[in-house]
Amino acid sequence: MSHIVQIRAEGRQALASKGFGTSAVASFDDSAPLKLDCDRDLAPFEIAYQTYGTLNAAKSNAILICHALTGDQHVANTHPITGKPGWWSTLVGPGRPVDTDRFFVICSNILGGCLGSTGPASIDPATGKPYGLHFPVITIGDMVDAQVRLIDRLGIDQLFSVIGGSMGGMQVLEWAASHKERVYSAVPIATAAWHSAQNIAFHEVGRQAVMADPDWRGGRYTEAGVSPRNGLSVARMAAHITYLSEDALQDKFGRTLEAREAKTFSFDADFQVESYLRHQGSTFVDRFDANSYLYITRAMDYFDLKSEHGGILANAFKGTKTRFCVVSFTSDWLYPTRESRAIVQALNAVAANVSFVEIESSKGHDAFLLNEPELFATVTGFINSAADRRGIAPVAASSVAPRPETT
Amino acid sequence: MSHIVQIRAEGRQALASKGFGTSAVASFDDSAPLKLDCDRDLAPFEIAYQTYGTLNAAKSNAILICHALTGDQHVANTHPITGKPGWWSTLVGPGRPVDTDRFFVICSNILGGCLGSTGPASIDPATGKPYGLHFPVITIGDMVDAQVRLIDRLGIDQLFSVIGGSMGGMQVLEWAASHKERVYSAVPIATAAWHSAQNIAFHEVGRQAVMADPDWRGGRYTEAGVSPRNGLSVARMAAHITYLSEDALQDKFGRTLEAREAKTFSFDADFQVESYLRHQGSTFVDRFDANSYLYITRAMDYFDLKSEHGGILANAFKGTKTRFCVVSFTSDWLYPTRESRAIVQALNAVAANVSFVEIESSKGHDAFLLNEPELFATVTGFINSAADRRGIAPVAASSVAPRPETT
Repeated sequence: MSHIVQIRAEGRQALASKGFGTSAVASFDDSAPLKLDCDRDLAPFEIAYQTYGTLNAAKSNAILICHALTGDQHVANTHPITGKPGWWSTLVGPGRPVDTDRFFVICSNILGGCLGSTGPASIDPATGKPYGLHFPVITIGDMVDAQVRLIDRLGIDQLFSVIGGSMGGMQVLEWAASHKERVYSAVPIATAAWHSAQNIAFHEVGRQAVMADPDWRGGRYTEAGVSPRNGLSVARMAAHITYLSEDALQDKFGRTLEAREAKTFSFDADFQVESYLRHQGSTFVDRFDANSYLYITRAMDYFDLKSEHGGILANAFKGTKTRFCVVSFTSDWLYPTRESRAIVQALNAVAANVSFVEIESSKGHDAFLLNEPELFATVTGFINSAADRRGIAPVAASSVAPRPETT
Repeated sequence: MSHIVQIRAEGRQALASKGFGTSAVASFDDSAPLKLDCDRDLAPFEIAYQTYGTLNAAKSNAILICHALTGDQHVANTHPITGKPGWWSTLVGPGRPVDTDRFFVICSNILGGCLGSTGPASIDPATGKPYGLHFPVITIGDMVDAQVRLIDRLGIDQLFSVIGGSMGGMQVLEWAASHKERVYSAVPIATAAWHSAQNIAFHEVGRQAVMADPDWRGGRYTEAGVSPRNGLSVARMAAHITYLSEDALQDKFGRTLEAREAKTFSFDADFQVESYLRHQGSTFVDRFDANSYLYITRAMDYFDLKSEHGGILANAFKGTKTRFCVVSFTSDWLYPTRESRAIVQALNAVAANVSFVEIESSKGHDAFLLNEPELFATVTGFINSAADRRGIAPVAASSVAPRPETT
C-alpha cells in the first residue's frame, strides 16, 4: 500500500519511468515493425499488460479483455495511480463471471494509450523527444495488431475469448473479423461496428476543447512543462454526460442543490450535477494524457467495419466459427441497441453462432462497468458453457468455497 | 444593404455603440429599478426590440415573441450582423402563421442578452466599465419582468399572445404563471417547466469551456481587448449537438468525408460533421457575447416553475383564463415530449383551456426553428381561432392576394 501511495504522490509522468507499477511490458524491437493502417511502420514499440490466473498446459484458457477509451490494463487489481479497484473487478477475478481460477486473463494497455504502451507521450527514437503529434494516427485495427504481437509473444495460438465494452467491443469485433481462427468466442458489449455521426461529433468537441487550451502547445506540452488540464477536463465533462442516461442523471442528481439551502445567484456549482461533472473532469486529467485522448478518439471515429468490407458488414464475419455473445443496454444512447442489432444481423447473415441479450438498465452506456446482475449472469452463462465445450477444466470443487471478495 | 455590410464589417462590439442597427430601445432610468430575484435592484437598464405590423386602436392584437438562448429580437428582418433572414421569418411575417397584417408583433432582446438590451457587456454606471461578472445573475422571471416594463411602455394592457420555443417557451410559461391577466393566449413550444439535470450538465460544460479560456480573463476580456473565442466556440459545438437528433445528424452527415476521397490520418476535419460543427462554433462567436452565454444558460438552469410553486406545477397556473397551445417534437431529446406533457397535465389539473400537439419530426430540438408544416398549421389554426374569439379583425380580403415572400 505504501508503494501505491508513493506512486500516486509522484504522479503519472514519474510513473512513465517506473514501468507503471506492477504491469509487465512486452518490448518489440526494430526487427519487425508494426505495419499501421496509415502506411507507416512503428518500431520499436512496447505493450504494457496485466495477467490474472494461470495459463493451462494446453494454452486453451486465455481470455483477452479489451479496455475502453479511458480504461487501461488494470482490470482487476488496485490502480497504481488512483488507488481504486480495477475497472472491471466486478466481472473479473476469482469466483467472478470471468473466473480467474478457471481462466488466464490478459489485459493490455492499447497502442496509443498512456499507461505503459507506446503512445504519443512515448519518446520518439528519431528525435529523443516525446512523439506528440508526430505519433502516427492509429486505428482500432492497429491496436488489435499490437495485441496480436503480445498474444504471439505469450505463445498463445487461440484465445478462448475476447471480451470488451464500448471501444473494447470494437476491438473484439476487429479480432473476430481479422483473426477468425484465433478467437474461440467473442463478447462485444455496448458497442457498434461503426462510429455514428453523433459520436464523431461529441469526440470532435472533446478534441477541440483540448486543442483550444493554450497549454496544449500544439501537442508539445510535456516539453514545455505544462499540461492542457482545462481543455482535457472540459472534454471529459462533455463525454461523461454521454456515458449516463437522462434517467440516471435525474435519479442521481435531479435538481438537488450542492450542500446549500438556496441558489447562490453565482457561477458556483450550485447543483450537485455540476460539482459531480467538475470532479469527473479534474480527476481525469491526473491519470490521462491529453494527446492519447486525441489519438484514441480519432481511432474510434475511424472505426467502420462495414465500409472496410465493401459496405456489407456480414462480409467481415464470413466463414467465422467464433461463438458470439452480443450485449446491449436499453438506456445506452451512445451505443444504442440498434447498433448491436446491426452486428447480430450481420452475424446471422453468415449463420454464425450468436446469442444476443439486451439488458434492461437505467444506467446508460456506463452500465457495462457497473453492478449489473443480468450482465454478470449473461457473461457467466455464456463463458462457462463455451469453456465446457472447449474442454477447459472447471474450477476444482475445493476452490469454490466462500472466499474474501478481494484479489 | 451597404449599411448592413458595413455593420458586419465593424463587428459586434462596434454595434454596441450604434444601437444595433434598426432596433428601437426602451430606456428605464433610476426612478424605478428592476427588482431582481437575487434581491438586487437593476437601474438604469435598456431593452432593445423590434416590432412588425400595426397595433390596432383597441391595442388587442399584440403578440410577444420570446427568443431562445442564442436568439435575439430580429425575428423577421434581416439580421444586422449576419445578414441572414430573421430567425423565425418562416413563422412571422405578412401572410405567415403569425400574420403581421393582422397582428402587432413585438420581440425584445432579453435582459442579459448582447444585442442592445442591458447585459454583462453593458457599462456598469458604478464603475464606467463593462459589468462583466459584476452583472447580477438573472432569472427567466427577471427577463419577463423587463418585458413587462416594455409592454407597459408600449401602453399594452393585455398581450393577445405570447409565443416562444425552448428558452422562449420558458418565458411564455413565466408570463402565463406570473401575469395571468395580461396573457390572452400562450404558445410554449419545445420547452419545459424546469431544467433537467442533463440540460444543466450540458450547460455547465459550456460554461466551463468559456471560463477555461485564458482570454476570458475572469469576464474582463473586453477591457483587455481580447475575446474567449475558443472557449465559446467549444461551448457552442457541444450545445449544437444537443439541438439535433441522432437521426438528423445521421441523415445530414452520416460518416461522409469532407471533400476528400479517403481519411487523412490526421486531426483535420475529415468528416463533414466535424467541419459543420467547427463552422457552427466559429460563426457563433462573431455574433454572441461570452458572458451573456454564461448568464443566460444560468438563468435557464435556475428555471423551475414547479419548485417556485410549492412543488406542484399546477399551482403556477391556478385561476388562469389563458388559452394554451403546447407543442413538442418527437425527436427532441433536449426538451422531450414528456416535459411538455407535464405542463399539459398541470394545466389540465386546473381545468385550463389547453390543446397539445406532438409533432412528428426527425429534426430534433431545432425543429421549432425549421420548416415544419405541421408547426405552421398548428400555430395558424390556434392563433386565428383565438383571434376570432378575441374579436381581432381578420386580414382584409384585398390584402390576402398573392404577394412577394419578403418583408
